[in-house]
Amino acid sequence: MTWTFSAAAPVIDESGASRLAARSDRSGWAPDGTPRGVVVAHDIAEVQQTLAFASEHGFPVVTRGAGSGLAGGASAGEGAIVLDLSRLDRIVSIDPVDAVAHVQPGVSAAALDAAAAEYGLRYAPDPGSFSTSTIGGNIATNAGGNRAATTGSTRDAVLALDVVLADGSLVQLGRETVRGVVGLDLVSLVVGSEGTLGAVVGATLRLTPRPVGSAVAAATFADAEAGAEASAALALAGLRPVSIELIDGRTLEAIDALRGSALSQGAGAYLLVRAEGRGAEAEIAEVAAVLAQTAIEVETTGDDERARELASVRRDALAAIEARGPAIIEDVAVPRSRLAEAIRGIDEISESLGVDVHVLAHAGDGGIHPVLRLDDDGPASQLDAARTIDAILELALRLGGTVSAEHGVGALKRRWARIELGDSVVELQRRVQAAFDPNGILNPGKAL
Amino acid sequence: MTWTFSAAAPVIDESGASRLAARSDRSGWAPDGTPRGVVVAHDIAEVQQTLAFASEHGFPVVTRGAGSGLAGGASAGEGAIVLDLSRLDRIVSIDPVDAVAHVQPGVSAAALDAAAAEYGLRYAPDPGSFSTSTIGGNIATNAGGNRAATTGSTRDAVLALDVVLADGSLVQLGRETVRGVVGLDLVSLVVGSEGTLGAVVGATLRLTPRPVGSAVAAATFADAEAGAEASAALALAGLRPVSIELIDGRTLEAIDALRGSALSQGAGAYLLVRAEGRGAEAEIAEVAAVLAQTAIEVETTGDDERARELASVRRDALAAIEARGPAIIEDVAVPRSRLAEAIRGIDEISESLGVDVHVLAHAGDGGIHPVLRLDDDGPASQLDAARTIDAILELALRLGGTVSAEHGVGALKRRWARIELGDSVVELQRRVQAAFDPNGILNPGKAL
Repeated sequence: MTWTFSAAAPVIDESGASRLAARSDRSGWAPDGTPRGVVVAHDIAEVQQTLAFASEHGFPVVTRGAGSGLAGGASAGEGAIVLDLSRLDRIVSIDPVDAVAHVQPGVSAAALDAAAAEYGLRYAPDPGSFSTSTIGGNIATNAGGNRAATTGSTRDAVLALDVVLADGSLVQLGRETVRGVVGLDLVSLVVGSEGTLGAVVGATLRLTPRPVGSAVAAATFADAEAGAEASAALALAGLRPVSIELIDGRTLEAIDALRGSALSQGAGAYLLVRAEGRGAEAEIAEVAAVLAQTAIEVETTGDDERARELASVRRDALAAIEARGPAIIEDVAVPRSRLAEAIRGIDEISESLGVDVHVLAHAGDGGIHPVLRLDDDGPASQLDAARTIDAILELALRLGGTVSAEHGVGALKRRWARIELGDSVVELQRRVQAAFDPNGILNPGKAL
Repeated sequence: MTWTFSAAAPVIDESGASRLAARSDRSGWAPDGTPRGVVVAHDIAEVQQTLAFASEHGFPVVTRGAGSGLAGGASAGEGAIVLDLSRLDRIVSIDPVDAVAHVQPGVSAAALDAAAAEYGLRYAPDPGSFSTSTIGGNIATNAGGNRAATTGSTRDAVLALDVVLADGSLVQLGRETVRGVVGLDLVSLVVGSEGTLGAVVGATLRLTPRPVGSAVAAATFADAEAGAEASAALALAGLRPVSIELIDGRTLEAIDALRGSALSQGAGAYLLVRAEGRGAEAEIAEVAAVLAQTAIEVETTGDDERARELASVRRDALAAIEARGPAIIEDVAVPRSRLAEAIRGIDEISESLGVDVHVLAHAGDGGIHPVLRLDDDGPASQLDAARTIDAILELALRLGGTVSAEHGVGALKRRWARIELGDSVVELQRRVQAAFDPNGILNPGKAL
């Protein structure tokens, strides 16, 4: 099909390579067909022109950042215009008294955090894709991270957004102040909307002081269930360390295979607890006392170098699993009180369906990343994986949890999102979405 | 006018006293006329019946809790049905591992906090009306409090809501887990919507451990601007104590008049800083070192009894002003970096318009409560007050702030809310509101 922009419109890259690259994201999932072309926007006016043009012609628009999403949210198919905002990558300003940053959407969290560090500040959200994903993508998915239970997810950091609506108009949502209650909270609505309400072209983000002091405890347990129960014991003791990461025995074996270490000998789980602030060492001492009641071994440290070594087990976990073959990272959450039960259930599913499932968990708030390891990429393996994922999502809902803790619904979890939300809430959400995008051109077939 | 409910409908109180009482809230503002009657709901079914009935007849519905609002949001006029949810006041459950409470909307924050304390937990939001207002009202206005900048406002505590929509249908929004990104964030949308999206009949709230340790610093300054500048200096030093409360010289005089104390002799402002957690005393020592650079006097204490005495200055402030005559509590916020400028501007407005304005500020995040003290309740005083408030709201917007930091738009700030948001955002908000309440029966004439 031949199509043209008006003279004032931005340049479209219609090359086969660009269009092909925009068909998928890190999930590997791609819809049928290829997009019409890719607009690499260099300013807000180009974003407005693109959306006005798409509205006029009824073309779907898929907004894209780094393409690091894990749910197919930015995958673009037949007939779509891909709106690439990765070149809008400036940190516009940082105010050290207000502890507020103004950024364009193509900046990475890591780049913002590094700039904030010059003022003794940090950008708190720490998704696994911290260095590669863009703030725009983090906003689209309300990205979390290891610390999210205590320092907040992306939504908690966003004060205001500049958003181009489907018709090409620009609106400013939110405010520059931390406090404020005027009007409906459309900022929180756009955060996590996975590109279905508008294109975010600017964000006002809250920064926080870099913590004074930190300390770490690492403990081994007989199995992951025991680690999960220890995490619940920390909660009951009134302890809320900044992060509690749980790694199961299967993952320890993968790390041992990668590193030649012996973590999995005599241990079936690893729990990594981090505290921050002036009272970090005192807090970690209390943490260690609780963990020691059921752990095989507990080590604590206030030394940064040793803390980094202890944390490397978590940092290397995914790479270690992926080194053994094709892997799929899943993402659910259950109430903290059900975490041990969820892990037991995942083990049972793994055994009964014959698919290796490794478990990494943000144990402080019940977030679980089951990682499926497949024998190969063939259709039989894919079918086994699909069955395993369905069983895990069903388990998460049965335990009062959610089918996506932080990666998003994207294209891959729409059926399950509908089950989780129920028809009447989905219907309400659609009406709200239509208030922003009456013709449904923004990322159709995703999220809702 | 005569009107009747169906046999299955709840009982309506049509007595003159009830209808009259429902015309206003703590703001004192009342619209024209009197409401049709008051439904005191005893269960969710009665709320559903009332809204279905109102929808059928096109009657406006004003949902009401304790009536402690300060913006006329719950004031009901001619023809409205008042839906009183204050009897839905049960704490349904508290789970100590998940640190989650399920409550009905008529519970007060104080009652919930007391129940949470039995598990070593607390309900973090601490609005001034903590003991009297209901959680339902706190949700309607996204109520803040002294600690809001650090421990969050009401929105930050809400995980899930049961909401009866205008047509009488019941929807469950949100989830039981702390993490979760499935669907648009309709929970954050309903929080702060001032009764315009639905009637909240149940809430799942996040609790946090009660802090281990606390410490307080109290400092006096030459004037309130100097106190505001000291607060900015704390931010620049990377200090984020849990609350920073500023009280101006005029308020100190009122407190002296009430108590027979001598706080205002030789001091034109009082700054009260509270730190919590294991590192509280160390943090307060750092705070005191910064304050000492510009303060007249600084006192710190880790002793609870002395801390309560130092905090009583803030606690008694409003009562002391009100003891001198009629008073109006205003509510704006500016970026923290503009707080000193805002206070100077308010002083200038007070002087030029001849109305006494006292200033209480949540200095940690730029929240300001200018309190107007009137000579009497007469029309001339009311007119002077209106001119003064308009000038203060205009000032807040000029400094990049907001016309309501935590009390809400209600009936009283609609014109200013429109100026703050701009026509295109108001239009977008109306479309979103219509997605919930297509016929506009919920609290019409309020908020938007």
